[in-house]
Amino acid sequence: MPEKLRELYLQIKERNFRALARGITLVENNLAGYEDLLLRLTQTGTTRVTGITGPPGAGKSTLVNALLGYWLRQNLTIAVIAVDPSSPFNYGALLGDRIRMNEYYTNPNIFIRSLASRGALGGLSRKIIEITDVVKEAGFDRILIETVGVGQSEVDIAGLADCTVVTLVPEAGDEVQTLKAGLMEIADIFAVNKADRADAEGLYRNLRMMVHEKAGDNAEIPVLKTVATTGTGVDELAVAISKCIDEQSSRPEKHTKLLLEKSIQLVQANLMRNLSLQQLEGELRTAMLQPHFNVYAFVNEFLEKNIRI
Amino acid sequence: MPEKLRELYLQIKERNFRALARGITLVENNLAGYEDLLLRLTQTGTTRVTGITGPPGAGKSTLVNALLGYWLRQNLTIAVIAVDPSSPFNYGALLGDRIRMNEYYTNPNIFIRSLASRGALGGLSRKIIEITDVVKEAGFDRILIETVGVGQSEVDIAGLADCTVVTLVPEAGDEVQTLKAGLMEIADIFAVNKADRADAEGLYRNLRMMVHEKAGDNAEIPVLKTVATTGTGVDELAVAISKCIDEQSSRPEKHTKLLLEKSIQLVQANLMRNLSLQQLEGELRTAMLQPHFNVYAFVNEFLEKNIRI
Repeated sequence: MPEKLRELYLQIKERNFRALARGITLVENNLAGYEDLLLRLTQTGTTRVTGITGPPGAGKSTLVNALLGYWLRQNLTIAVIAVDPSSPFNYGALLGDRIRMNEYYTNPNIFIRSLASRGALGGLSRKIIEITDVVKEAGFDRILIETVGVGQSEVDIAGLADCTVVTLVPEAGDEVQTLKAGLMEIADIFAVNKADRADAEGLYRNLRMMVHEKAGDNAEIPVLKTVATTGTGVDELAVAISKCIDEQSSRPEKHTKLLLEKSIQLVQANLMRNLSLQQLEGELRTAMLQPHFNVYAFVNEFLEKNIRI
Repeated sequence: MPEKLRELYLQIKERNFRALARGITLVENNLAGYEDLLLRLTQTGTTRVTGITGPPGAGKSTLVNALLGYWLRQNLTIAVIAVDPSSPFNYGALLGDRIRMNEYYTNPNIFIRSLASRGALGGLSRKIIEITDVVKEAGFDRILIETVGVGQSEVDIAGLADCTVVTLVPEAGDEVQTLKAGLMEIADIFAVNKADRADAEGLYRNLRMMVHEKAGDNAEIPVLKTVATTGTGVDELAVAISKCIDEQSSRPEKHTKLLLEKSIQLVQANLMRNLSLQQLEGELRTAMLQPHFNVYAFVNEFLEKNIRI
């Protein structure tokens, strides 16, 4: 490992924000040395990762904001990774009234990084995994990943976060029943946000029923009511997150599951990285002109020529 | 190709619904013969695929429903593929007041198939692609794919549909600006649904501005107002879809781009299929017990052992 990279790594271990930012940029853009950096990670950090996910408009960012305030009052250090394109922590969104969130950018106990959510195929998942691993080396008390999702896309965060908070708002009431299986699969905590609204009670009760059904003799997944804008329920959420994180140590099977999920994503990403998309495109452009072109036969032939398993 | 499969294929070409359903089941579950079926596809069909996507609660299903009514009145044959887990066309959601949509299940001109949106990693995209290709052989006048998405997940549909309708509702107003790049990348048509609400005008104007900015000297992407529940604007939407589909023939570059996207997804899926997840898990469980375990090193070693590129 080159001396400069070694130095960068040691600075990251000391939680030097500039070094951490540089390390992330290295990884994000596949710059020279980024693989060395990843291979150098000790991955012995015990920082657990909290994921906050939910549909756009669920108030995830306001909730993250409120949690930051709570943790700062407890003198904790926090890293926020915003993958949600609509997050105010995302540079692109620092507009209008959202600019107020900016205060945290200068707080020495908070490191914030936003990731563009559009990249090459499968590339984003790999990058989030890699960047989270780099951030983990810096020994923060909390790492928060904010992603947008409901339906398919939250799968990613489920493989990444030790504790996943699914944020929903009253409007989601109708969808909850149909998304049930997916929600129950990923949520460690439910937060019913904007809970001061009249229609929140129905959603709350639905979720309570769902988690009760699933729990059987086990402990039920917490369902909490929050009003992120006023801070109501945020303390309880922070406590539930701490509890969830603490319990991870007693659940080695979940840790293994996360690691397996992560390995699968990395395997997939690495396989694609070794293929030339230019070559694929070139061969496709020739093949598609043939009279009996069939895309499945084309893909088979392409892989046979270029890969031996 | 076995005689039985040949027969099945010929029946699919004749738009026999039972054969089509069997063919899809074959593909969906990787049953014996499914690869033969895919390789047999002539892929000469000219049916263009329309995608309808948008966040949960945008009224996609009601809009699909209204479009079905319109096309039926024109004596068209239609296939609907519902990937959205909250779609009423999804069996799991045939509850409560949604059951009224059921009428179309018995209409001889409409073929409806819902796909579970949770499966193995990357598996869903491949299955949607494969199933759409099977459906294409049956020569419907319209193929509609309904997916839930906003943020990352609509990427999939973008590679699949010749014409993508992005459905938004007034609540989305705040998000539109931040999702701008992503939305503009995939939308061929914008539908502002629930447009009878007072706050719809703002969203409508924002979208109009966005498409105007992007268009330059080219034609602007249509932005339409719809009220799916009353049918307002649905005719216009159907006309815009027809126009969008017709224009595809004059845009061979888009066709190639879709085919490339499809090939990439298939390559990715095939690569994963050839790996044993059991083996990956087994090796991971051993490796993670080592004192200097590093997941990136582990994945590299696993691939080196199991794959040669």
